[in-house]
Amino acid sequence: SQVFKVAVLPGDGIGPEVMAEALRVLDAVEAKYDVKFERTHANVGGAGIDLEGKALPETTVNICKASDAILFGSVGGPKWETLPPDEQPERGALLPLRKIFGLYANLRPAIIFPSLTGASSLKEEVIAGGFNVLVIRELTGGIYFAQPKGIDGEGRDRVGYDTMRYSVPEIERITHVAFQAARKRGKKVCSIDKANVLSSSVLWREVVAGIAKEYPDVELSHMYVDNAAMQLVRWPKQFDVILCENMFGDILSDEAAMLTGSLGMLPSASLAEGTFGMYEPSGGSAPDIAGQGIANPIAQILSAGMMLRFSFGMVDAADAIDNAVAKVLDQGFRTRDIFQQKDGEKLVNTKEIGDAIIAAL
Amino acid sequence: SQVFKVAVLPGDGIGPEVMAEALRVLDAVEAKYDVKFERTHANVGGAGIDLEGKALPETTVNICKASDAILFGSVGGPKWETLPPDEQPERGALLPLRKIFGLYANLRPAIIFPSLTGASSLKEEVIAGGFNVLVIRELTGGIYFAQPKGIDGEGRDRVGYDTMRYSVPEIERITHVAFQAARKRGKKVCSIDKANVLSSSVLWREVVAGIAKEYPDVELSHMYVDNAAMQLVRWPKQFDVILCENMFGDILSDEAAMLTGSLGMLPSASLAEGTFGMYEPSGGSAPDIAGQGIANPIAQILSAGMMLRFSFGMVDAADAIDNAVAKVLDQGFRTRDIFQQKDGEKLVNTKEIGDAIIAAL
Ligand SMILES: CC(C)[C@H](C(=O)O)[C@@H](O)C(=O)O
Ligand SMILES: CC(C)[C@H](C(=O)O)[C@@H](O)C(=O)O
Repeated sequence: SQVFKVAVLPGDGIGPEVMAEALRVLDAVEAKYDVKFERTHANVGGAGIDLEGKALPETTVNICKASDAILFGSVGGPKWETLPPDEQPERGALLPLRKIFGLYANLRPAIIFPSLTGASSLKEEVIAGGFNVLVIRELTGGIYFAQPKGIDGEGRDRVGYDTMRYSVPEIERITHVAFQAARKRGKKVCSIDKANVLSSSVLWREVVAGIAKEYPDVELSHMYVDNAAMQLVRWPKQFDVILCENMFGDILSDEAAMLTGSLGMLPSASLAEGTFGMYEPSGGSAPDIAGQGIANPIAQILSAGMMLRFSFGMVDAADAIDNAVAKVLDQGFRTRDIFQQKDGEKLVNTKEIGDAIIAAL
Repeated sequence: SQVFKVAVLPGDGIGPEVMAEALRVLDAVEAKYDVKFERTHANVGGAGIDLEGKALPETTVNICKASDAILFGSVGGPKWETLPPDEQPERGALLPLRKIFGLYANLRPAIIFPSLTGASSLKEEVIAGGFNVLVIRELTGGIYFAQPKGIDGEGRDRVGYDTMRYSVPEIERITHVAFQAARKRGKKVCSIDKANVLSSSVLWREVVAGIAKEYPDVELSHMYVDNAAMQLVRWPKQFDVILCENMFGDILSDEAAMLTGSLGMLPSASLAEGTFGMYEPSGGSAPDIAGQGIANPIAQILSAGMMLRFSFGMVDAADAIDNAVAKVLDQGFRTRDIFQQKDGEKLVNTKEIGDAIIAAL
């Protein structure tokens, strides 16, 4: 039987609770398929700070290096909010993980679950039939990492600056990811930039257009980021795959996720070249409801599903997880965050919805 | 009687048609108040390119320099889309105008007109009672203008780069604009940044917090730009004044404007130190309906109103224009873009709604 090594980083807030359910789902996958997931737990985020002095401890990095994939919970909380930005759980864990493991391709699906359209703040007629957008965000370049970056001078003479920079190969590889994903879906890529203002965007647009020629079956369009922020609100269904540089992807993927109304339900994948990847829910650590056993574990479970799909090539098992989640939602199981007091809905806690998903598997 | 000099730059598409109505409204203001608007027309955008060889001709700049304010229509259209970005109507006219005239403070109200809530793609319960957000965007700094910016190298070795940079005085002056505006409204400023990633944002946040101390009656909050893109969708009413650097303001002001569903109704002001300003509709040149006399002139008329308010200190006349527009909407007058086939609505053309607004003045 195949063995995959998984670094399990539950993190803070609801992280550990929802992670527990994802791990039970992995148990169920082991029972059903000829596979073994060898899991090593490690501290990250606030837990890393409290127990080992930093958001991303050395031990954690080493455990990740010895693994085939990282299953990440969520990090952050009021306790650590007064630390300098660099040391805070989110930034201090996520940015180094992305850089160390070369996680250049961030896949963030924004999907309306048909049974949950009521949760979106968009009108019924705008989202009728749901929508399914995949934001593909470049994750290791651009203004997040390029140098120089800093604050110079003293007092009122200070100047703060950052550099947005992209090389051709950086743009090429993320563009391939977008076109390959689009091929398996709606066969459309909308590339986002601000080529009317930014030089990095002029290069971005040109390189994307060049790569597009290798995918004649996929339709390419270009859109300015300000227009994209509008079009997502106006008519999200016009999009299939949205390809963004790092910062634009940060903004638009969050906007798209919130439009679904199912933020707590959305998984994400951050992929390196090869098969290594990190998988995490799109939502946050929700410290307000942590420890109560009521958090929604679906995003974490779907993230585990993405891990099977992208890092382990277990497409069948990944599909089975996605289908189990859909079935459980259709059956009316709802954690508190998605409970709408409609007929047929059953209010359940974290473990109960985990049970239902495992049963549906 | 007072005399104000206005540079009138109708531009392309529907620009000239809607400008004609705004000018008729200025005539009506002259008839009612003791004031004279001395207007000089000039070419800009595609019209500038076609007639004088560039998007912002020298003559136009000189006419603007000799004026107390600029009333701008809208620019752009398919005819000029294949030009290099620098020469295109929008970028080639707007960016130099902002720089030459030091238009550092961009005020973009995003208002739901109570009679038009149906046009928003947000659910009734999210926008019930309307919302009224004022985005204040820094307009002459940041990644739009800072150097270095360019593309270096050859072929696949090329690298494209831009610099996001802010000095303390640049942040201070736009922050004062935001707090002074908030004082006259809901007394809340939400400052947007990405201080967990960008050094320019770390400085931004610190300087904004410092200036806030001078306005103890106004409440300050900070929000990351990705979260702001979500919160606007989730619950726009939580915002009063949103303060942004240039690029974040570009994105969020468009998102906020689209959320209202009344994009074609929203004016904007771009102010220099002192009283000079440029006033223009938030929407585009709508080349598809140009020349048919059916465009909605309200954004242009409200832009003229903002000019009276901010550059000419004519608060009463500005209020009168705002009220006249609200009244005409309440009376059911609708151009095609806002016609919803409801009882009491009267479909009218550009000139007819202009007549109605003038009558209501
Ligand atoms: C925490 C922060 C550094 C991070 C980012 O900006 O990338 C987060 O917003 C995200 O999208 O994963
Ligand atoms: C045309 C473009 C350069 C401009 C900008 O990005 O500022 C436009 O989008 C705007 O918001 O006025």
